[in-house]
Amino acid sequence: MPRIEIIGVEGIPEIVEGIDLGETILDAVRKTGLELRNGDVIVVSHIIVSKAEGRIVNLSEITPSEFAKKISTESGKDPRHIELVLRESKRIVRMRRGLIISETVNGLICANAGVDLSNVGKGKAAMLPLDPDNSARKIRERIRELAKVDVAVIISDTHGRPLRNGAVNIAIGCSGLEPLLDRRGEVDIYGRVLTSKIICVADELASAAELVIGQADEKIPVAIIRGYKYKPSETPAKIIPRREEDDLFL
Amino acid sequence: MPRIEIIGVEGIPEIVEGIDLGETILDAVRKTGLELRNGDVIVVSHIIVSKAEGRIVNLSEITPSEFAKKISTESGKDPRHIELVLRESKRIVRMRRGLIISETVNGLICANAGVDLSNVGKGKAAMLPLDPDNSARKIRERIRELAKVDVAVIISDTHGRPLRNGAVNIAIGCSGLEPLLDRRGEVDIYGRVLTSKIICVADELASAAELVIGQADEKIPVAIIRGYKYKPSETPAKIIPRREEDDLFL
Repeated sequence: MPRIEIIGVEGIPEIVEGIDLGETILDAVRKTGLELRNGDVIVVSHIIVSKAEGRIVNLSEITPSEFAKKISTESGKDPRHIELVLRESKRIVRMRRGLIISETVNGLICANAGVDLSNVGKGKAAMLPLDPDNSARKIRERIRELAKVDVAVIISDTHGRPLRNGAVNIAIGCSGLEPLLDRRGEVDIYGRVLTSKIICVADELASAAELVIGQADEKIPVAIIRGYKYKPSETPAKIIPRREEDDLFL
Repeated sequence: MPRIEIIGVEGIPEIVEGIDLGETILDAVRKTGLELRNGDVIVVSHIIVSKAEGRIVNLSEITPSEFAKKISTESGKDPRHIELVLRESKRIVRMRRGLIISETVNGLICANAGVDLSNVGKGKAAMLPLDPDNSARKIRERIRELAKVDVAVIISDTHGRPLRNGAVNIAIGCSGLEPLLDRRGEVDIYGRVLTSKIICVADELASAAELVIGQADEKIPVAIIRGYKYKPSETPAKIIPRREEDDLFL
């Protein structure tokens, strides 16, 4: 029977700017007695990537604009947080009660431009990595260099979404696996050719990893998914966000 | 280290109307030498539930309405398929090039009202189960009765979604676990109280299961997720679709 394992990696130390994430992950895995294998998928919560890449700011260093102050007055939210969200956005999609849905500089449409006040410490905020596909690629290459294994790497984030309550984890960066598995042309069990089946396996892998990452009070920022036969590819996760004109749902 | 297993259940026979799905799943699991355990999550692809519940129709028995014929002429799609989509919908949300986004009688907003032409045989179509939460509950109770184990059951479907390319698997029915895990009030690693974190673990479990269900040319319609510590609950999956007035994304 096909069997996939999702293993939470404990023992990742506090991440500081400039740390070698590939080496850090590898060390933590080895300390638990495991070895990474060819074909493993390593899902990394974006928060430690943001920390390693210096994408953390002290809110005390942020001077809110007049616009941010106005939104703050109306919503009761910290004006410096709103200012950061505006700085990380290239376009506001919707605004209501201080919640801002915007398109980030990376082309993601999400709440608060992905700016996070959790798991960074009091008075601080985390912004998304500047180029999460590149972050994934660097971790993957470093692991290949140090451990001589070829893994795929996904950078994940927890995102709210339209139509459905509750957030799920999605892939904001990807290296080594095809994020969108195109199954068109395959036949079903009755011989009918599939005409419209494209699966976002990168998002499904990110969601699967959250089942262990989310269970441990954020102390497990990395998961290994073992046994999933992905399609090797250099396609980035930035192809996942859909162009608005192609989006029938909106 | 926290570890979750996703096990694909092979050997599920062709499902006919009226079959006892709980018993069928249990038999298939036992034939592989496994036993279900308390706390296992059983993810069942909706297609076999639709078959067991007689939600399959011969397209030859469907007489398309004038409206369905008109959409067919414009899009080149089978007018009987369109007719079925209309019959399964209580409201059309968007229409373009023959693709219909509608709200189903169950309150799901999805493409083609979930009517599926794959994996049902030539000239046939599958509709979604009439009450997938009830379908999940029945399978769960039958397994408890026969095997004396308390599992949670999720009925899954592959859905396209707004903003992001590629479909993912979501939970359309659920029994035994809390589909929306409310983590508000928990503290992060720095002691900050989480204010907005609600995770749709039911959808994440459905997505995780698809990693084995989707790998085997549709021959594996059931997966066991073992090792995930869910919160026991009788809350149905029908609370996941968000009321439109609460949806800032739309």
